[in-house]
Amino acid sequence: MTGSNDKTPGGPGRRLPRARAMEEFRAAPTFVLVEPQMGENIGATARAMLNFGVKSLRLVNPRDGWPNEKAGAMAAGASAVLDDVQVFDSLDAALHDSRYVIATTARRRELMLPVLELREAAATAQARIAAGDPCAVVFGGERNGLSSDDVARADAILSVPVNPAFASLNLAQAACLVAYEWSAAARAGAETEEVDEEALDRRPAERAHVASLVDHLIDALDRANYFRPPEKRPLMTRNLRVALSRAGFTSPEVQSLHGALKALERSGNAS
Amino acid sequence: MTGSNDKTPGGPGRRLPRARAMEEFRAAPTFVLVEPQMGENIGATARAMLNFGVKSLRLVNPRDGWPNEKAGAMAAGASAVLDDVQVFDSLDAALHDSRYVIATTARRRELMLPVLELREAAATAQARIAAGDPCAVVFGGERNGLSSDDVARADAILSVPVNPAFASLNLAQAACLVAYEWSAAARAGAETEEVDEEALDRRPAERAHVASLVDHLIDALDRANYFRPPEKRPLMTRNLRVALSRAGFTSPEVQSLHGALKALERSGNAS
Repeated sequence: MTGSNDKTPGGPGRRLPRARAMEEFRAAPTFVLVEPQMGENIGATARAMLNFGVKSLRLVNPRDGWPNEKAGAMAAGASAVLDDVQVFDSLDAALHDSRYVIATTARRRELMLPVLELREAAATAQARIAAGDPCAVVFGGERNGLSSDDVARADAILSVPVNPAFASLNLAQAACLVAYEWSAAARAGAETEEVDEEALDRRPAERAHVASLVDHLIDALDRANYFRPPEKRPLMTRNLRVALSRAGFTSPEVQSLHGALKALERSGNAS
Repeated sequence: MTGSNDKTPGGPGRRLPRARAMEEFRAAPTFVLVEPQMGENIGATARAMLNFGVKSLRLVNPRDGWPNEKAGAMAAGASAVLDDVQVFDSLDAALHDSRYVIATTARRRELMLPVLELREAAATAQARIAAGDPCAVVFGGERNGLSSDDVARADAILSVPVNPAFASLNLAQAACLVAYEWSAAARAGAETEEVDEEALDRRPAERAHVASLVDHLIDALDRANYFRPPEKRPLMTRNLRVALSRAGFTSPEVQSLHGALKALERSGNAS
């Protein structure tokens, strides 16, 4: 069980329809906004999420802090989302309990990641969630979108098929489209859903474990003076992070890799 | 040919990619906002439309007049839509050259109209447009949405499958979803598109002709003292309007019906 599944949503004595709605919410992806700027956009995002039954919203370093009055004004009553917003100081922290991560970005071909069109991404997220893996969809801030280092944390890139002559999609509109397609995929999936016990054994590790493995590897490589020339270090670390983040390692595999790394470090120190 | 097809988009000396984009625009539906209130929402709608290659925007009695500074600020450069906005003083006027009309409304079952889910509605619009029929999608204002008399002008109702516990969709978000699904349907349709010559003979009349037929019939019935008791007149006229608007009459059929109506009037006056 993951951290997000351990939470008890809602209070005592709640009515059944709300309880059932909450069940749906728990099975929806988490939306993560990285350095969002305008409270109005956070509020409009919350509203669009709730329109399609997506409730979990996390913010990484919102420019104007949190809570934000303007977000409340634009959310038009979507307090079921806004009241439970979680704020983090790094994307890694915001993704800690996710097991599948999709990054929304217009820069498609920059990293060695699979590119999923919106509908395909929603179906993939739905299948992962049905298999028991918490999913996160990551959105960049209004000005610059996601950095390459942010995208490097993802399993896949989500691309919205926009008009190439006018491709800049508003943050809340992008969130609305993802929520809408996720909800369509969830309705389609509900008709055929089965728990695949074998797939549970193959489920990817929580993101916190993958991130710590990457950090471990980079530390070890730093000590081994691997990143040369030094100006290439950012690109080299990013490429490593991409490869390991999207690898879909299970928790036992991550543990094994940690052990392997330690063994290599010891042997290197000994030599 | 319809009025909207007769327009020459773009200026002289434009580059080819823009010309091709314009071709796509011409084949997109027209979005009609009935009594929109906030300029910000009109601007955000224009931006979302252009993101998905929908360019034609018409307003019916915008609360704050037109042009509207706040719309420009929110449109983030979508001047290709905003510069060509057309303003009308009635929905009938805004629909005059449409041949297929879809109304977006949450009140699904009120009128005797087919209800299409968003994706189905987009596919229908795409098929109609491929057959040469200009389509319009009508959105209500922020406060009250579309009136029943507005919806009565449509061929079909479009329903967005929202979370029933939080169903109020922002105007620009609704427009974004329709534009997105239309663009997906257009891309799918482009792969298999063929001109069906026979279908052109069956194409529905322009809305202006249908509206004048309904007005003609209601005038005639008023003179015939048909609407009794008088308090039932609004409902009775609306039901007539629904039935005739969604009937898909061709232009020759509308002409025949006008003629039939005139004949009935003459004979009634003579008796």
